[in-house]
Amino acid sequence: MKKHNFSAGPCILPQVVLKKASEAILNFNDDDLSLIEISHRSKPFVEVMNKAQSLVKELLEVPDGYSVLFLQGGASMEFLMVAMNLMKVDGKAAYTNTGAWAKKAITEANSLGEAIVLGDSSDKNYNYIPKGYTIPSDVDYFHCTSNNTIYGTQMKVFPSCSTLMVCDMSSDIFSRKVDVSKFDLIYAGAQKNMGPAGTTLVIVKDEILGNTGRNIPTMLDYNTHISKGSMFNTPPVFPIYVSMLTLEWLKNLGGVEAIEKINQQKADLLYGEIDRNPLFEGTAAMEDRSNMNVCFLLTDSSKEGAFNTMWDEAGISGIKGHRSVGGYRASMYNAMPIESVQVLVDTMNKLEEN
Amino acid sequence: MKKHNFSAGPCILPQVVLKKASEAILNFNDDDLSLIEISHRSKPFVEVMNKAQSLVKELLEVPDGYSVLFLQGGASMEFLMVAMNLMKVDGKAAYTNTGAWAKKAITEANSLGEAIVLGDSSDKNYNYIPKGYTIPSDVDYFHCTSNNTIYGTQMKVFPSCSTLMVCDMSSDIFSRKVDVSKFDLIYAGAQKNMGPAGTTLVIVKDEILGNTGRNIPTMLDYNTHISKGSMFNTPPVFPIYVSMLTLEWLKNLGGVEAIEKINQQKADLLYGEIDRNPLFEGTAAMEDRSNMNVCFLLTDSSKEGAFNTMWDEAGISGIKGHRSVGGYRASMYNAMPIESVQVLVDTMNKLEEN
Repeated sequence: MKKHNFSAGPCILPQVVLKKASEAILNFNDDDLSLIEISHRSKPFVEVMNKAQSLVKELLEVPDGYSVLFLQGGASMEFLMVAMNLMKVDGKAAYTNTGAWAKKAITEANSLGEAIVLGDSSDKNYNYIPKGYTIPSDVDYFHCTSNNTIYGTQMKVFPSCSTLMVCDMSSDIFSRKVDVSKFDLIYAGAQKNMGPAGTTLVIVKDEILGNTGRNIPTMLDYNTHISKGSMFNTPPVFPIYVSMLTLEWLKNLGGVEAIEKINQQKADLLYGEIDRNPLFEGTAAMEDRSNMNVCFLLTDSSKEGAFNTMWDEAGISGIKGHRSVGGYRASMYNAMPIESVQVLVDTMNKLEEN
Repeated sequence: MKKHNFSAGPCILPQVVLKKASEAILNFNDDDLSLIEISHRSKPFVEVMNKAQSLVKELLEVPDGYSVLFLQGGASMEFLMVAMNLMKVDGKAAYTNTGAWAKKAITEANSLGEAIVLGDSSDKNYNYIPKGYTIPSDVDYFHCTSNNTIYGTQMKVFPSCSTLMVCDMSSDIFSRKVDVSKFDLIYAGAQKNMGPAGTTLVIVKDEILGNTGRNIPTMLDYNTHISKGSMFNTPPVFPIYVSMLTLEWLKNLGGVEAIEKINQQKADLLYGEIDRNPLFEGTAAMEDRSNMNVCFLLTDSSKEGAFNTMWDEAGISGIKGHRSVGGYRASMYNAMPIESVQVLVDTMNKLEEN
């Protein structure tokens, strides 16, 4: 039986993608060679890289003047690279503090200059998105995190900004329409809506680079990777290939607009049950609830054993909550079918009936 | 027909490894979930990481006091991390310049301090390994490249060294016995003898770290990764899994000692033909010839078309030489069977007969 995989990341990928990826490990491009044993400079792989980049541009309607990169090191490396490439020597930047990952980004910025924290929801264990702050125009850039996996919160509206706008979209990129032209730099670890762990997507407006007065080490300089089309050194071949397949799947499905509707249906279904069923309660502020990660608790903890047995028997996996929130977290990334969400809702229902 | 894959990297991997990797993409650990859609903190993947680390220790007889890490960014990122973690503020280090990769390592060291070049073979297009230099004891460390993929040269003996000894073993690690206790830090991109592109092996003596007086960004600090067992952030799950499978394959085959003998047989076979056949000549100095990458030229360039047709028809792939050397390069990493080398030798023979 195929599991209902609610894992927070690395997470569910489309079955058709997994099938093609599995085949490519044995015989890629009908060349009788594995995808992972050919040169990254060979024509078949260069085509993969080009296609992955152009699918990102197409699906997100990336305007001209932006570069699309597939790097390594995850969002954690981008925390450093963003500051390294955009913060002037002795400069400062404004950050929102909306959770564990945002905090790590702030730490890296503080190691190179000064990070001013504008919005901070740590007072309530990050269960809401701070609003109402004004972004000063004299900072080098503004940084926010669009979705907070651990706490199940999501920015529904982005603030207006007269400085450079940078966003960590690791956990909700490709899940909803976003106006890329409003951002100067977007980054995202692949392992949620794009592909397997091991590559990081960076979308950067070329003209914002090279203005820090800082000596940037080769591998940390976005311009290094832009000038070589993400092939300065050997790229992570397999994660990029699977990302390309996943983006192709998304395109065939109707693109970001189509998946956004499906994601909304899934969210409505599960949040609807949480709000209806007296045995459950959500942890995130209503208006900031994430459509990707749904965090909830049992109102009566004595039901925990029964509920855990029930979802396990229903073939559900990966819904244990993060230790800093507790309870449950159902992650419903793009590849999660609504049928799986229905199975979870039915299980919650059944718990109430028993 | 399965190709005879002489690609310089990413390169040939054992068939049994490819088969298991392909299966794990569909169903890993009999859990009805793909390897690439489960949490890296799940028990099955934590076991993969632990096994990969312990296989490295076992196969290379890594002494106590060393940590084994699987990082991202390739050797290119290590060029920076080595200098960042070992070079004191305003410090200096000694480097050998044995080729394109060594040169890039030198560039990164120079961006943080001073790199003194001790041995330099750029005068003869890097076709030999410089020897006879004395490593000063007042440098922070000495850095060398054990095998130079592009030029087909390999260090057969490592110099004695009274400072820290650092080696880029990207293209010959696990191919021959090496006394790890003589080194303080060894690093290697996975994509030659260990696995697919996307992870970098680092073996580091713990006690050498933390002495630079430098503020090291989180992700560039080896201690960050040591303290979290290579799981500070999401690791590149698939490349690490395939590396684990490849190391397991090597262990079953008899380990490094056994593969070293096979690699010597392959090298003897191909270099023997190059030296015997008047139509070919090797490019590297005899005593420094690499057992991994065999670079050779046609003595009569008018035979090029005929030879190219012949090896192509024999099912040989990936032997085009690097543009900076020209001619041919046959890479014979661990997974390359001697039968494939024989096919190449037969083809060279046939060219002579025609």
